[in-house]
Amino acid sequence: MKAFEFLDEIGTVNTHTMVLDKGLGYAYVEDALKITGEYFDLLKYGWGTSILYDTEIIKAKNELYHSYDIKTYTGGTLFELANKQNKLGEYFEELDNLGFDAVEVSDGSTVIDPDIRENAIKQAKENGFYTLSEIGKKNPEKDHAYTTEQRIELINKDISNGSDMVIIEGRESGKNIGIYDEKGNVKTDEMTQIHENTPNEKVLWEAPQKNQQVELILKLGNNVNLGNINSNEIISLETLRRGLRGDTLGKIQK
Amino acid sequence: MKAFEFLDEIGTVNTHTMVLDKGLGYAYVEDALKITGEYFDLLKYGWGTSILYDTEIIKAKNELYHSYDIKTYTGGTLFELANKQNKLGEYFEELDNLGFDAVEVSDGSTVIDPDIRENAIKQAKENGFYTLSEIGKKNPEKDHAYTTEQRIELINKDISNGSDMVIIEGRESGKNIGIYDEKGNVKTDEMTQIHENTPNEKVLWEAPQKNQQVELILKLGNNVNLGNINSNEIISLETLRRGLRGDTLGKIQK
Amino acid sequence: MKAFEFLDEIGTVNTHTMVLDKGLGYAYVEDALKITGEYFDLLKYGWGTSILYDTEIIKAKNELYHSYDIKTYTGGTLFELANKQNKLGEYFEELDNLGFDAVEVSDGSTVIDPDIRENAIKQAKENGFYTLSEIGKKNPEKDHAYTTEQRIELINKDISNGSDMVIIEGRESGKNIGIYDEKGNVKTDEMTQIHENTPNEKVLWEAPQKNQQVELILKLGNNVNLGNINSNEIISLETLRRGLRGDTLGKIQK
Repeated sequence: MKAFEFLDEIGTVNTHTMVLDKGLGYAYVEDALKITGEYFDLLKYGWGTSILYDTEIIKAKNELYHSYDIKTYTGGTLFELANKQNKLGEYFEELDNLGFDAVEVSDGSTVIDPDIRENAIKQAKENGFYTLSEIGKKNPEKDHAYTTEQRIELINKDISNGSDMVIIEGRESGKNIGIYDEKGNVKTDEMTQIHENTPNEKVLWEAPQKNQQVELILKLGNNVNLGNINSNEIISLETLRRGLRGDTLGKIQK
Repeated sequence: MKAFEFLDEIGTVNTHTMVLDKGLGYAYVEDALKITGEYFDLLKYGWGTSILYDTEIIKAKNELYHSYDIKTYTGGTLFELANKQNKLGEYFEELDNLGFDAVEVSDGSTVIDPDIRENAIKQAKENGFYTLSEIGKKNPEKDHAYTTEQRIELINKDISNGSDMVIIEGRESGKNIGIYDEKGNVKTDEMTQIHENTPNEKVLWEAPQKNQQVELILKLGNNVNLGNINSNEIISLETLRRGLRGDTLGKIQK
Repeated sequence: MKAFEFLDEIGTVNTHTMVLDKGLGYAYVEDALKITGEYFDLLKYGWGTSILYDTEIIKAKNELYHSYDIKTYTGGTLFELANKQNKLGEYFEELDNLGFDAVEVSDGSTVIDPDIRENAIKQAKENGFYTLSEIGKKNPEKDHAYTTEQRIELINKDISNGSDMVIIEGRESGKNIGIYDEKGNVKTDEMTQIHENTPNEKVLWEAPQKNQQVELILKLGNNVNLGNINSNEIISLETLRRGLRGDTLGKIQK
C-alpha cells in the first residue's frame, strides 16, 4: 500500500527510465531499491566502470537489479574497446557470464563502420540481449558535425536494424552535446524535429539535469523515455513525471 | 565522548537545521544518523516524494528520525494538492497515521486564499502538529512579484496565526528565488531587511548552497536557522557554524 | 578475478589518490570499499569534520580504511587550530589515540611562521606519521598573492624538511584557487611550471572536478597524484586514468 492513496493523482506512467551507476556498493543498492526499484527499468554501469569490478560483485549486483525487473548493461565504451580489439564474440560471452541482459552498441569514442554497427546490433539480438544503441559523439566538436537530419537518419536506421532502444547521447554532464547547448539548455527545435521523425517509444533521451527532465516532460509528454538519471534523483524524476513537484504540478495531463 | 575534546572550540549552537530527504534508503539513514543525527532537528521529505513510498517504509523512516529527536514533515506540495482537492482533513489524518509530527503549509505552486491559509495553520496546530509555513513562489517570475515588504508582512502574519516556523523559499537549487539572484548569490539588502523586521528564532532560510550558508552565518550569526541542507552536507554545515572550516574559521563569535 | 579480463587494457597505475570524506557512515564506507578500496590510498576527513565524531566511530572508520591499506588523516584546519592554541603535542597524541596514521600540516586559514611549519613537519615525522603538507590559502585573494615561483619554492622546502607529500590546494570546489581559474579551468602554464620544477612523485594536486582530472592526466601522465576526489567519483577517476572513458580513451600511453 502506498502513502497518501486518498489523493487523486496521476498514476504510474508507461515509460522507460535509465539510471546511471558509477560504482555503487551492493548493500547500498539493495537498500535503495526498496524505495526506488519500481521507478526505473534500465541500469547502466557507466562507460568502462564495470571492468574494475570483481566478477562476483558485478554478478551479485546484476541479480539484485534483475530481481526488480531492471535490465542491466555496461556503457558503450567497453563495446567500443572490444570491437577495436576484434573481440566482440568474447565480449558478448562475458556479458552473459556476468549476468548482463542488455548491451549497448555505440561509436561515441571511436569510428565504427556502418556495416560493423549493423552487424553488432544483429549479433547482440541473436545472442538474446535487449539491445540499445547510442547516437552521438562524446567529443563536442565531433558531435556538432552531425546535422539533425543525420541524427534522425541514424536513429531510424538502428531501429530498422533491430535496436530495441536508441539513446540520444547527453553524457553525464548534459552540456554541449546532442540537443543541449553549452549551459545545458535544451535546443527545442532540434528536440522537436527528432521527436516528430522517429518512433517515440524507441527513443531514450539522456537528460541528467533537472531542467532538461522538466522540459522534455512538458514538451514531449510525461512518458518520454529518459536516461543518465543520477541514482539519487530517481524519486525526484518520478515526481516530475506525475506532477508532484512545483515545476510540473498542474501541467501534466492525466 | 567526542574526538579532539582538548581543543578549545565553539560548542553546539542553539539553532534549527532542516535537511532535505529526496528518497534515501532506510538502512542508509540508520547508518548516517549515527554521525549526523545530533546536528539537525527537522527533516523534510522533499515536495511530493513521500507519496511514492510504501506505507510501511515511510512509517519506519519517521520512527528512525524521531529516535534522534528529529521532527519529520512532507513538502508543501502535498499540502497544496490536498487543499486543491478539498481533502485537508484526510491529509492531516494520513500524516498522523504515517507518523509525521510536523506539517508544512505553503502556496508555492498554487494560489491559496489568505483565509484558507490562516485556517490551515490553525487546523494543523489543533491537530497537534509542529507547523511550518513557507513564503515564496516556486516559479521565479511569480516569486519576483513579491516586494521585500510583502514578504515581511506575510512572515509576521503567519507567525501571529500560530506558525511555529516560517520558511523563506530557496528551492533545491538556491537560484533566482527569494533572497538569491540568478547565480545563487545572496541579495544582502533584502536578507538584512527581512532579518531586522521578523522574529529571528521563528524564521528559517532555505540555503542549499555552501556560499549561502557561509554568508547567512557570517551576517546573521552562527545560530541562524537554515534549511534544504543536502543530506551529504550536514556535517559540513555544522563545521561552518562552529568555525571549523576555512570560510568561517576565526570569524565566529563564541 | 576481475570482469572483462580478456580485454587488453591499461593496468593499475602506480600513483596516489586522495579521497575526501565529509562524514560518511561506517556501514556505507564498509560497503563501498568492497568496490573502491583498491583504487585509492589516502583518505582525508575534510577540514574540521572529525571533531564532530564520537571517539568510537572515528576509531572504527580509521581501522576500516586501514584494512584496505588506506592511510587516514584529518584536514589541516584542525592542525591550524591546535597550533594556534599551542597544543601540537596534544594534537599528535590524540591523532595517535584515534588511530590516524597520517597528518596534514598547513597554513591555509592562518599565518604560520616558516620555522614553526618546519618544526611541525619534523615533529610529525618523529611521531611516526606519514606527513602531508599543503601549499595555498583558502581565501582566494590571499592565495593569488603567491607567485608560481613562490609555490615551487615552498613545495621544495617542505620536501627538504621531510614532508612525504605536498598538496597543491584546490579546495572542495576547485575554483579560483591555486592552478584553477574562477570557472575551474586549469591554468596550464602554472601547472606545467610547477610540474617541471618539483619532484612529481611527491606532489599531489587537489582536483575535485572531472575536467581538472582529465587535463592533469592528459598533460602530466595517468599516474599523476590527485586529491579531494569525491567519494562517489573514485571508480570514475580510475577509469579516466586507464583510458576507459571517452575523455581519455585512446589517449593514455601504456
